[in-house]
Amino acid sequence: MPPDKKTTLLIRNVGQLVTMEGPVPRLGDQMKDIGLVEDGAVAVAGEEILAVGKSDEVEGHVDLAEGCRVVDAHKSVITPGLIDPHTHPVFSRTRENEFEMRILGKSYTEIAASGGGIRASVRDLRETSREQLVKKTTERLNKMLSFGITTIEAKSGYGLSTESEIKSLEIIRDLNEAHVIDMVPTFLGAHEIPDEYRDKRREYIDLLINEMIPRVASEKLAEFCDIFCEEGVFNIEESRSIMSAAGKHGLKSKFHADELASTGGAELAAEMDAVSADHLVFISDDGIRAMAKAETAAVLLPGTCFSLGSGRYAPARKMIDSGVIVALSTDCNPGSSFTESLPLMVTLAALHYKMTAAESLSAVTVNAACAIDRGRQIGLLAAGLPADMVIWDMGDYRELPYHYGVNLVRAVIKRGKVVIE
Amino acid sequence: MPPDKKTTLLIRNVGQLVTMEGPVPRLGDQMKDIGLVEDGAVAVAGEEILAVGKSDEVEGHVDLAEGCRVVDAHKSVITPGLIDPHTHPVFSRTRENEFEMRILGKSYTEIAASGGGIRASVRDLRETSREQLVKKTTERLNKMLSFGITTIEAKSGYGLSTESEIKSLEIIRDLNEAHVIDMVPTFLGAHEIPDEYRDKRREYIDLLINEMIPRVASEKLAEFCDIFCEEGVFNIEESRSIMSAAGKHGLKSKFHADELASTGGAELAAEMDAVSADHLVFISDDGIRAMAKAETAAVLLPGTCFSLGSGRYAPARKMIDSGVIVALSTDCNPGSSFTESLPLMVTLAALHYKMTAAESLSAVTVNAACAIDRGRQIGLLAAGLPADMVIWDMGDYRELPYHYGVNLVRAVIKRGKVVIE
Repeated sequence: MPPDKKTTLLIRNVGQLVTMEGPVPRLGDQMKDIGLVEDGAVAVAGEEILAVGKSDEVEGHVDLAEGCRVVDAHKSVITPGLIDPHTHPVFSRTRENEFEMRILGKSYTEIAASGGGIRASVRDLRETSREQLVKKTTERLNKMLSFGITTIEAKSGYGLSTESEIKSLEIIRDLNEAHVIDMVPTFLGAHEIPDEYRDKRREYIDLLINEMIPRVASEKLAEFCDIFCEEGVFNIEESRSIMSAAGKHGLKSKFHADELASTGGAELAAEMDAVSADHLVFISDDGIRAMAKAETAAVLLPGTCFSLGSGRYAPARKMIDSGVIVALSTDCNPGSSFTESLPLMVTLAALHYKMTAAESLSAVTVNAACAIDRGRQIGLLAAGLPADMVIWDMGDYRELPYHYGVNLVRAVIKRGKVVIE
Repeated sequence: MPPDKKTTLLIRNVGQLVTMEGPVPRLGDQMKDIGLVEDGAVAVAGEEILAVGKSDEVEGHVDLAEGCRVVDAHKSVITPGLIDPHTHPVFSRTRENEFEMRILGKSYTEIAASGGGIRASVRDLRETSREQLVKKTTERLNKMLSFGITTIEAKSGYGLSTESEIKSLEIIRDLNEAHVIDMVPTFLGAHEIPDEYRDKRREYIDLLINEMIPRVASEKLAEFCDIFCEEGVFNIEESRSIMSAAGKHGLKSKFHADELASTGGAELAAEMDAVSADHLVFISDDGIRAMAKAETAAVLLPGTCFSLGSGRYAPARKMIDSGVIVALSTDCNPGSSFTESLPLMVTLAALHYKMTAAESLSAVTVNAACAIDRGRQIGLLAAGLPADMVIWDMGDYRELPYHYGVNLVRAVIKRGKVVIE
């Protein structure tokens, strides 16, 4: 421990400290060993973790700063702050009418044809003021934080014009400054073909490649470029050309892949060295092998299948057993999955993917960090890393999937500060 | 409006007032008409509703008491307080270990055989102090209240001895006094055959009939008697004799029926004029007809099927279309469904029962009241009834199933008092 650093926050009497620091050979392999320490403590200096481990080891060696805050965890569970690696949080109007239409038997395609779906959110975003969008997005960030989420990936994609995509990304940039949650911005201009380009899709692709991507990259408004790679949206060849352009401008890659059918999206993501491929309900065995080899993380979105009422879920077990880095996300968006609860995704992962609590906890922390290219930087508790942590109202981490539909967060610590309690 | 009553609480500027007062011929038929008033207001005098309706009609005629509280609902939704008609809230130890065993492939029967299941909770309850049970049950009631639940039905059933069943019911009685939530107590000594009577089940049934039921009734510790009527637990003939005895002692009837197989439980419940039959995953068409005719309410528990990972759900649509009074509940218990979130049941009812938001709202208010024999007494907003209400953080009631896994409650009013805000 550096002798010059004093402890500003000490969390003691931790029943189960889930560090995610298992003795593991490579990223993604933490799923079987979550680095569990019983009777633990964490010492924080400023924004960083100073020491983490067994109570006596930590508490016997810390030098408390004046005014150091000491928190008694009362034998409860502590985990790293959760990371949600796939969200679409910037929108105003909700689409509960479409949810009800689906319950009454309308298909997603019929709803889209009658003016609903992504295009409804595009009309809404273009018409809505920045102030209103900031207000509604902030409400969502607050809910996310209340569920223990301390970092998210946030996509544009309801603008689909240069101006309104920039508007979305600027809102994400501003909220990244203003809000406690860290936001990693992703440009998703290739979310859909907007109405005004329906009959000239090639022109929209040219606009993406020649105008939007260069502009987003030069203004440093996004770290990632994402694309809805699917038959009927952007096919494999179109995806390859758009994502190549993004790569040339220094944007890292993410893919919405194999959500509705097996079209080789996962294979393309691996081939292009994407940081993640997401959805993957219909991923092929070749796609699984390719992603494992390329270390492209799989971001699985069980809430989307749940909320769309589809009976089919991604083959998570096969991916885990094949060595793919598996992460979980809410897919928070106004159409197919409106929720801020990453804990409920842990329950859905148990029920539909047969993932254990340890595997799911990896998937929303250390593996989710890999999915946003922050592997070993966040999502685990180790000296020198940001002090992002959750104190849970439970005595056993396995309660997280089991006690479902509720919020078991007792306190959230972001960069060494207690921000929720 | 009675001229002598002054308004002590006025809620104004309500976007959607869901009164559940539709122009309906009989109980249970509210599902198609939830008595929606746009731009509404509610006036409360003490513990009761004084007036409810259009803003101008209510606000133009109220006489505000000194110190009257005026709440601006900011165009949001107001519903009656939610009613959860089937809970098992009195337990201490949670069973997350069994949840994980199920995920890893063990069956409910295997888990029970290895000492898990209801019998694990029985051992726990018998060993646990009243203080600890009160503490843990109170935590659950607090969570329920936070989700807008103002009345629950609460069962014993983890004691299975005269002494420990009485202990559970006394805890329910005491918490009904101490806690804001109203609790309707149910004796469920016939939940399972306890270990010590495994080889002499007839003796346990005699104990139920000759000792427990008379004692519970004479001490007025329960309003209802419930039974797990299922092959392998209590069969039809045993159920008939136990529930007849309960009826003779003045206890009203509820049945756990047709949960695991179609055994005629619903038919028996209807024949015995039960107030409700619950679960009903395998109910027969005859059972549906019989329940509709007898006006025995169906309490459906989608969380139990969800959390057990079974693919089969009760035929809710058929029941609704056949005129059965359908209610929804969490089944909150430590084994098959550990949740306090009735709103999530509304989402599950949409996805798995194809129930609209209006139908589900009926099912957790006015119909749930029928299921605990409080029809037209609670679960709707009308002059003279208890002022139990929820102010929601939504502008359209259809957001309740759609925005899932989160808590959309802004404020809870119980008997005219704002108890959560």
